[in-house]
Amino acid sequence: MNLTVYLAGEIHTDWREELKEKAEKNNLPLTFVSPQTNHNRSDDIGEDILGEQPGNLYKDDAASGINNFRTQVLIQKADVVIALFGEKYRQWNTAMDASAAITMNKPTIIIRPEPLIHPLKELSNKANVTVETVDQALDVLRYIYE
Amino acid sequence: MNLTVYLAGEIHTDWREELKEKAEKNNLPLTFVSPQTNHNRSDDIGEDILGEQPGNLYKDDAASGINNFRTQVLIQKADVVIALFGEKYRQWNTAMDASAAITMNKPTIIIRPEPLIHPLKELSNKANVTVETVDQALDVLRYIYE
Amino acid sequence: MNLTVYLAGEIHTDWREELKEKAEKNNLPLTFVSPQTNHNRSDDIGEDILGEQPGNLYKDDAASGINNFRTQVLIQKADVVIALFGEKYRQWNTAMDASAAITMNKPTIIIRPEPLIHPLKELSNKANVTVETVDQALDVLRYIYE
Amino acid sequence: MNLTVYLAGEIHTDWREELKEKAEKNNLPLTFVSPQTNHNRSDDIGEDILGEQPGNLYKDDAASGINNFRTQVLIQKADVVIALFGEKYRQWNTAMDASAAITMNKPTIIIRPEPLIHPLKELSNKANVTVETVDQALDVLRYIYE
Amino acid sequence: MNLTVYLAGEIHTDWREELKEKAEKNNLPLTFVSPQTNHNRSDDIGEDILGEQPGNLYKDDAASGINNFRTQVLIQKADVVIALFGEKYRQWNTAMDASAAITMNKPTIIIRPEPLIHPLKELSNKANVTVETVDQALDVLRYIYE
Amino acid sequence: MNLTVYLAGEIHTDWREELKEKAEKNNLPLTFVSPQTNHNRSDDIGEDILGEQPGNLYKDDAASGINNFRTQVLIQKADVVIALFGEKYRQWNTAMDASAAITMNKPTIIIRPEPLIHPLKELSNKANVTVETVDQALDVLRYIYE
Amino acid sequence: MNLTVYLAGEIHTDWREELKEKAEKNNLPLTFVSPQTNHNRSDDIGEDILGEQPGNLYKDDAASGINNFRTQVLIQKADVVIALFGEKYRQWNTAMDASAAITMNKPTIIIRPEPLIHPLKELSNKANVTVETVDQALDVLRYIYE
Amino acid sequence: MNLTVYLAGEIHTDWREELKEKAEKNNLPLTFVSPQTNHNRSDDIGEDILGEQPGNLYKDDAASGINNFRTQVLIQKADVVIALFGEKYRQWNTAMDASAAITMNKPTIIIRPEPLIHPLKELSNKANVTVETVDQALDVLRYIYE
Repeated sequence: MNLTVYLAGEIHTDWREELKEKAEKNNLPLTFVSPQTNHNRSDDIGEDILGEQPGNLYKDDAASGINNFRTQVLIQKADVVIALFGEKYRQWNTAMDASAAITMNKPTIIIRPEPLIHPLKELSNKANVTVETVDQALDVLRYIYE
Repeated sequence: MNLTVYLAGEIHTDWREELKEKAEKNNLPLTFVSPQTNHNRSDDIGEDILGEQPGNLYKDDAASGINNFRTQVLIQKADVVIALFGEKYRQWNTAMDASAAITMNKPTIIIRPEPLIHPLKELSNKANVTVETVDQALDVLRYIYE
Repeated sequence: MNLTVYLAGEIHTDWREELKEKAEKNNLPLTFVSPQTNHNRSDDIGEDILGEQPGNLYKDDAASGINNFRTQVLIQKADVVIALFGEKYRQWNTAMDASAAITMNKPTIIIRPEPLIHPLKELSNKANVTVETVDQALDVLRYIYE
Repeated sequence: MNLTVYLAGEIHTDWREELKEKAEKNNLPLTFVSPQTNHNRSDDIGEDILGEQPGNLYKDDAASGINNFRTQVLIQKADVVIALFGEKYRQWNTAMDASAAITMNKPTIIIRPEPLIHPLKELSNKANVTVETVDQALDVLRYIYE
Repeated sequence: MNLTVYLAGEIHTDWREELKEKAEKNNLPLTFVSPQTNHNRSDDIGEDILGEQPGNLYKDDAASGINNFRTQVLIQKADVVIALFGEKYRQWNTAMDASAAITMNKPTIIIRPEPLIHPLKELSNKANVTVETVDQALDVLRYIYE
Repeated sequence: MNLTVYLAGEIHTDWREELKEKAEKNNLPLTFVSPQTNHNRSDDIGEDILGEQPGNLYKDDAASGINNFRTQVLIQKADVVIALFGEKYRQWNTAMDASAAITMNKPTIIIRPEPLIHPLKELSNKANVTVETVDQALDVLRYIYE
Repeated sequence: MNLTVYLAGEIHTDWREELKEKAEKNNLPLTFVSPQTNHNRSDDIGEDILGEQPGNLYKDDAASGINNFRTQVLIQKADVVIALFGEKYRQWNTAMDASAAITMNKPTIIIRPEPLIHPLKELSNKANVTVETVDQALDVLRYIYE
Repeated sequence: MNLTVYLAGEIHTDWREELKEKAEKNNLPLTFVSPQTNHNRSDDIGEDILGEQPGNLYKDDAASGINNFRTQVLIQKADVVIALFGEKYRQWNTAMDASAAITMNKPTIIIRPEPLIHPLKELSNKANVTVETVDQALDVLRYIYE
């Protein structure tokens, strides 16, 4: 049974590559999709397509419409959502994607480091599973196929 | 036409009281509901009801189950959701509530200060309206009744 | 049985007042709601609340977010939607509201003059009932209570 | 990841062919579907299948039932909807399809020329992305696969 | 707890009056709604409102649009649906209403005489309860309040 | 684009075979599914699997549970539903399937002979298209692929 | 804000009365509904209304159709569901009601004694909150109104 | 037509293997999925992935989150659900899965031995079909393909 997994969250580390490689090594029939992970491209996509905007608010709104379009297409195709929170940044897109996925009844795994237990407690409680490492998330995915 | 408005977000200022008073002065037939705004009570509610837990992770999970229960009851009854982000804290519950509300097709207003434009851009784009002040949010509510 | 009726469409004639008066004379227990019918206010509401925008595109987008918020609140509360098309203007909001209402399974009546039969044929076919006059729409509402 | 794209709107220019060719050149794994683009066939399909009808109203209703059947089948299969508005005609089917798609949570792109900014402002605000050219729409589709 | 009950089916006997009277005698807090029970009015409503149509097919389609509008409004408001089949006629509207109600997750009771057991077996199996008399249906409604 | 078509209705003529053959000749990529068309098997399936039942009511209920299971599986997989009414019998399963399909937003075609126009008028009005012959239904299916 | 609470589970103790009294003492604006708590009436309701059945299987099926009808009406009206498991019996109706409520997105509280932690672990994990006593469930309800 | 069948219930006998083998012998194009059937692995999966927990309640909750994740993924992919109850144990997961599946409109078959007729009567009444043996369930699956 092939499953599509949307990988929300942290875009400044290579956790997605790590997860994909390990999934392949385990022969798990998973297709991974994700948001734009090139930060600059993600910030600039509105002006890249629509041309210069009259200020940062408008540049940001133009970019976010296109980023949200992409995310909506891919989360709707996903059977499972994994959201990884890192220690830095406010990561509201990660929280937004995880909460949207849970509300759409997508089975959801949260990966977050120990110091984030308290601020993420309500979101963790709504997700199916919360783990601390990418390896643990892989273990949960592998468990589907046991 | 009576409407119920869920007020998500910031719990360390009195913006909810301010909004309620102004709505009353304008004779808007609105009922306001909100999450637990007493921070300590919100953190302790799990142990307050279920007794001592074996560590912070478990204390937090116990509290968040009850907080999420409360939020789910009240957001489901709401016709409109307003989410206010302040400049401090990570406020992942605010992002979680706003994203859940939007996914449930609740008409949603976000209030956020100017410095948060960039990190909140995707969530702002998904909400119906984003404003900077409580007075502007009140203006939007009042517009329903014009 | 009280019902709420959303009146989409044409804002330059007084058809809403006419319908309300006739409904009252017939003692129909109906509550009518509608979009902003003051054209200038509807166009300016974005700048009225959010301040001056850097050009017409941005002024229009700011206004439309607030107009869509209002419409979403009111159509979700409605048991019935009536959409009136006049002979002038492109009236895309009327088509948008009628199509959204039908997709949300709201029982929908379209009022349109004879010359619009052809261009509105697909929308008319999806609506429950299409009539030519406000009096006929009132007849349909009255039929619920016979 | 293969995606199906429904192309609503304008049927008197060859924008669909242009978009398909460019998608192919970019090796995007997209399947495009669309309404009947032969205007006469679309107008006559009711009488073509059901025989002569007693007047234009009935001819139009017969045609529109079959056109709506086709559209409903294809939009339900679509992962993405693109709606192109031209400068001429009232194009209520385009508005109807775009609004239905958005209400069904289909990620939606609107293409419209600059002079239509104002009359389409509420629909544009509800869509995920609004652009002015077919090339820009292609850029948005391509962004899914970056 | 007040409940609204939609009474589908048979319009040539006074079973609705009988049920209402007995519900009142039992002080059950029920509001009953139903389709148009005046057979001629129901057949003529299209021409009564829209004027003469060019033949029976068109007269029937005009009437049915308005009848379906009425039914959709009232079934959507109903908490419970009761559908009574008599021994005569094909009663396809009764079957249509019962099947639509069940698909909409409305708790549904079917009343049908013993000779109809076989032809109604699949619909009976999908309904919550099938009984043979109005008194039995009343017993089921009364059971909600025990 | 492959589509699955559920063929509800009439089981005593070979209209399904006729439709399948013509679809094949037209190279339409359609998969057809249908209810059990062997009348005796359909009536006996309850006792065939569950053993003898204590009377006709119980035999019928046992059969209908299994028939409804089959229909639910297949209609849920269908992209399109066609329901054919013949001149004989009450055909309540045909009405039940058509009404359920329409309520589930399945695009639906009804085939019925001219004498059934009046008794089927409300169901015809709710379906997307109503035709009189299998060839016309095929024409409507073919129109999807033009 | 008035809320309706469905009390599933255990029918051989007076926990419902205890909960209602305490809710009243706390002036909580709650309306409580529940399944039939008279065990014999619940078992006999099928034969009480439909007459003698040919054996226990049929008597049970007749009763359960009517019990399920009642439960469906009341759970659909409920804003909150509480399910209490006792130490005796298999209580599959309690598990069925709790699981149905959770799947319908009803905020759900489970009350169960300590020895049932292990066998109920998956259901507890899906519910919002699991407590051990009626007083704790009352505390959770009261928390909504703080 | 390929179908996916989720096999809920009893994990201490080899009924799943028996069903799969018989389905293969009958050339039924079915894919079977199921919960974790290794009892110890299912109980320990939380600690296996997340490490030691501070007591049985926490060990059980950790395991059940992961078990529920697996079940949610697989039931959402399933076209049909079969739930087998044995004579031993409380089997609340089986009841939970069956009730969730029915509420999600998954066509559902229950297999249970004769002594469980009474305690399972409400759940049996809500399922599409209830049988006593694996062979009978296979007969029902085979009937889809006749």
